[in-house]
Amino acid sequence: MKKVMETIRGHERFVLATHLNPDGDAIGSAVGLGLALRAMGKDVTVYDRDGVPEAYSFLPESGILVSELAPGGYKEAVLIVLDCNTPERAGLDGSLGFRTTVVIDHHQTGTDFGDIRWVEPREAATGIMVYRLITALGVEVTREIATNLYAAVAIDTGIFRYQNTTADVLEVGAALVRAGADPADIAEKLYQSWSAARFRLFSMAMSEMEMAGPIAMIHVTLDMHEQTGTVAAETETFVNYPLVMDSVTVSVLLKEKEDGLWKVSLRSKGDVDVSGVAAMFSGGGHRNAAGCTVTGQLMEAKHTLIDALHDAM
Amino acid sequence: MKKVMETIRGHERFVLATHLNPDGDAIGSAVGLGLALRAMGKDVTVYDRDGVPEAYSFLPESGILVSELAPGGYKEAVLIVLDCNTPERAGLDGSLGFRTTVVIDHHQTGTDFGDIRWVEPREAATGIMVYRLITALGVEVTREIATNLYAAVAIDTGIFRYQNTTADVLEVGAALVRAGADPADIAEKLYQSWSAARFRLFSMAMSEMEMAGPIAMIHVTLDMHEQTGTVAAETETFVNYPLVMDSVTVSVLLKEKEDGLWKVSLRSKGDVDVSGVAAMFSGGGHRNAAGCTVTGQLMEAKHTLIDALHDAM
Repeated sequence: MKKVMETIRGHERFVLATHLNPDGDAIGSAVGLGLALRAMGKDVTVYDRDGVPEAYSFLPESGILVSELAPGGYKEAVLIVLDCNTPERAGLDGSLGFRTTVVIDHHQTGTDFGDIRWVEPREAATGIMVYRLITALGVEVTREIATNLYAAVAIDTGIFRYQNTTADVLEVGAALVRAGADPADIAEKLYQSWSAARFRLFSMAMSEMEMAGPIAMIHVTLDMHEQTGTVAAETETFVNYPLVMDSVTVSVLLKEKEDGLWKVSLRSKGDVDVSGVAAMFSGGGHRNAAGCTVTGQLMEAKHTLIDALHDAM
Repeated sequence: MKKVMETIRGHERFVLATHLNPDGDAIGSAVGLGLALRAMGKDVTVYDRDGVPEAYSFLPESGILVSELAPGGYKEAVLIVLDCNTPERAGLDGSLGFRTTVVIDHHQTGTDFGDIRWVEPREAATGIMVYRLITALGVEVTREIATNLYAAVAIDTGIFRYQNTTADVLEVGAALVRAGADPADIAEKLYQSWSAARFRLFSMAMSEMEMAGPIAMIHVTLDMHEQTGTVAAETETFVNYPLVMDSVTVSVLLKEKEDGLWKVSLRSKGDVDVSGVAAMFSGGGHRNAAGCTVTGQLMEAKHTLIDALHDAM
């Protein structure tokens, strides 16, 4: 962290970038750090090619994030890549010619991208690292910064439910609430902002769930989207629900992309590792959360996955 | 709290009682305090007429709770009533003749029951008060005590999602984790222990949901219980789910008790008060969570409730 602090203190112009298809930890960390650097009087651009997803537009000052970068003039600028640590994942083509590149991330990867790499796989969220950085820099954590960082931590810990929830994480949560973050309001905006159409899709998907031993399988077809008037992004978190059953250790969601092509989300409990199965279908992820793509008609695709999961369990 | 500490220090024999139909805050607080008093060398009986519900039987040492009290010999004993503050709610007939009675609760009521009343309506959970008491008494918070108290706080704050979640609450959570509570394990045991049958009942109830403006109505009939092989207790928390919709401010669950008789749970968001509507049907509760009983066939019962809610909103 020390080198990151020195780099921030020694420069005036920054571009903050996070990963494509950004989640709450990405947006909250980037906007939170962006606001802190601006409070230090720095010239800051916060960038994500995919922009701020509707679900995170409630985050204060998230409008500072831009989805386009001007094509040149970065010779004096420092690039800070947040919540990912490869240029591809950040959607950067590498030709922008930054003065130096800093990586701040809690995901372990095999790359050596970045002049200064601050990667802490043991931290629950990049938002926690940004909180530590901001306070170490002596910048006041305003209500706006605290709300962004609290949302970042909330998303990556399932609001203090996942195995990455430690006493340190809860203490950072407490500090952010003291600084002005509103836990109930953020929880409601993150998890209680479904449309009625989305809820109908959810009910439909749950009622068509099938079980194969400890594996729960749900699916969302293009036809179901049409019937309910919903889009693919609205299936987010559906895959978590079957895990409320004590007998279920793996939950699978198949999302129809086009006829015979399914985007698959895999979730597991405890020691059950689904990342290997995802890798068999050219996907990836973590032990308890992974994704891949499978072809075939619905029944066929389900059986392909069940066979692979049974072999892995 | 000082008087409670003095009373604990000055006596040797204690009966801890909590409310009928005990929830996680009741069981966790009673068992947690019971373990702490035993660690101080006290003679402690932890009592609840209804025993430990299956859902909380995972709590360490919850087996110390008994559901019967011997009929006499309490002249030297101190009664500590937790998470409620009337003898009726604790299922005590008052004829047991305790030396003195202490109340530890975070619910405001109009009664003056108890020789020493420590009632803090601003605390999120009785478990937090018990944590403060135990640490003030200088008793070590063991893993067993921490797990009971963490579960107490988790249940009463919806794992740090409700409006009663403050920085203090998160700090107590952090301290309990440092003392050995496992947040992910407790969250899983509290919220991911449904049977497959219960999940089928859930899917069925959600797919038959009806909307009346901002009011979502779900129902569970005796026939649905028979079809899925479930019991009434398994509908617990169902009423919370429709609140994920941003357009929904009130969620209603009607549970059929017998033909033409419905037990009703009401939940609301933010400033919408459902306790008044519950009171109209001889029920009660808080602003955002209340219950009552309504008669009539399903459609009739629903319309009765919708009319009353519309008048109140």
